[in-house]
Amino acid sequence: MGKNIVIVGLGLIGGSLAKALRMYTEHTVTGIDVSPDVLEKAFSEGAIHRIGTPDSLREADLVFLCIYPDAAVSFIGEYGNLLPKGCLVADTCGIKGEICRRMPPLAEKFGFTFVGCHPMAGKEKNGFSASEAELFQGASFILVPCGAPKEAVEELSSLAMQLGFGQTVITTPDHHDQMIAYTSQLPHVLACAYVMSPQCPQHNGFSAGSYRDVSRVARINEVLWTELFLDNAEHLTEELDLLIENISSIRNAVAENRRDDLRALLRKGRLIKEELGE
Amino acid sequence: MGKNIVIVGLGLIGGSLAKALRMYTEHTVTGIDVSPDVLEKAFSEGAIHRIGTPDSLREADLVFLCIYPDAAVSFIGEYGNLLPKGCLVADTCGIKGEICRRMPPLAEKFGFTFVGCHPMAGKEKNGFSASEAELFQGASFILVPCGAPKEAVEELSSLAMQLGFGQTVITTPDHHDQMIAYTSQLPHVLACAYVMSPQCPQHNGFSAGSYRDVSRVARINEVLWTELFLDNAEHLTEELDLLIENISSIRNAVAENRRDDLRALLRKGRLIKEELGE
Repeated sequence: MGKNIVIVGLGLIGGSLAKALRMYTEHTVTGIDVSPDVLEKAFSEGAIHRIGTPDSLREADLVFLCIYPDAAVSFIGEYGNLLPKGCLVADTCGIKGEICRRMPPLAEKFGFTFVGCHPMAGKEKNGFSASEAELFQGASFILVPCGAPKEAVEELSSLAMQLGFGQTVITTPDHHDQMIAYTSQLPHVLACAYVMSPQCPQHNGFSAGSYRDVSRVARINEVLWTELFLDNAEHLTEELDLLIENISSIRNAVAENRRDDLRALLRKGRLIKEELGE
Repeated sequence: MGKNIVIVGLGLIGGSLAKALRMYTEHTVTGIDVSPDVLEKAFSEGAIHRIGTPDSLREADLVFLCIYPDAAVSFIGEYGNLLPKGCLVADTCGIKGEICRRMPPLAEKFGFTFVGCHPMAGKEKNGFSASEAELFQGASFILVPCGAPKEAVEELSSLAMQLGFGQTVITTPDHHDQMIAYTSQLPHVLACAYVMSPQCPQHNGFSAGSYRDVSRVARINEVLWTELFLDNAEHLTEELDLLIENISSIRNAVAENRRDDLRALLRKGRLIKEELGE
């Protein structure tokens, strides 16, 4: 039996979830968005079965919150009373500490079940027009149970695998945020810092894959990422300090012409990468 | 009429040049390498017409030096007397200041023509076994004439386009090295520094494209890159200092919870990238 799934926010992630749910499952997908144009587009393209309103929450079996962290908490604060008892609510925010502090009290108040989720997929374009059913193929789906019962976590895990994710990971908010500071936030900081060099605008003709790879995510949504960075300030600052320290070690070996030290530092990098089999 | 082209060093670049010359031109390709196994392999795979020795230089119309910068200068210092007068010699080293200081006096002494070259292509694997005829498709071929006559530069440019390069760029050694410090050397330093975080070995399940892209070139040939970094110490140090400064600006905005400043910094990165149409 198909469930009623409500997706709040049809941007890149919400839109892609809707399309993947349509493509790979029999569930009924209802979309909610602040933009009537986006809703019309999603409906006419068949990404959603129904254009919804907060009232649609009354019939929801599962709700995906695909909006910014602050907005997700506000939305549930405002409309959580409409949710049926036992309804499953998942977010898709990139940082989990903050939302996993603020959502469980609302879950208790309104009687729904909350599981923090982070689909580890994205691209350097935003919005519904960039969304695609195949966005999640092979990606990792991270679950942060926040005290939710095992069945709820399993339901979301198995749904994720149906949608094309390659693996699911269950972890705590803190470990999630520490890892994400390193794997995702750091590269975004780096990309923005990297393109600030005066050489950047002249790179054409002098660049290849390395430039392209490091600079790729400089095309950032600064409103979203400012919120994500500040929600994870401690872990991110720690990773940035470490990175600056490691860059400085190499920089000093270059500047001081310490050939053996430089070679040893680069060798260390190579060995780490090789030991990971990458 | 096909020319006699001698390739010194059948690693990733030399091997790929040989294969591309065989695939896209009628020239006769002779290979020289310190490893008899590599020579045999290259010959049996048809990447070269002939296994050569330094004596093969006597009949060369064009020589590509595809070995480390120091080794390239030593090789010509030792065998340059074998080159026919007017022979064209090109290197493929990643840094041009050093080789463009040391090669022209040898060119004058032995009567050959030297043009510094840098095929902007590579991958995170080394050696002949990683070489491929298509390595240069769409890449930039940089020429540093070092006082060579226009005809020599044009000959190499047109050969590069035949081999599949997408564009050629003519520049000075200093501008080349300044740009390469930014576009290529910096990402290699970064990749090595990035994987030194204690989070790195646990990234699986928490990572996606951003991790992969920034860490990719950590699989570095530390012997080669140590030489390239030290040959370009001044420009590289300058770029690293600037990068550390720009990362620190973002780091401080995060650590001090300065939301507007952080948003402005990320916005700056995004606009630079967008203005480049990337």
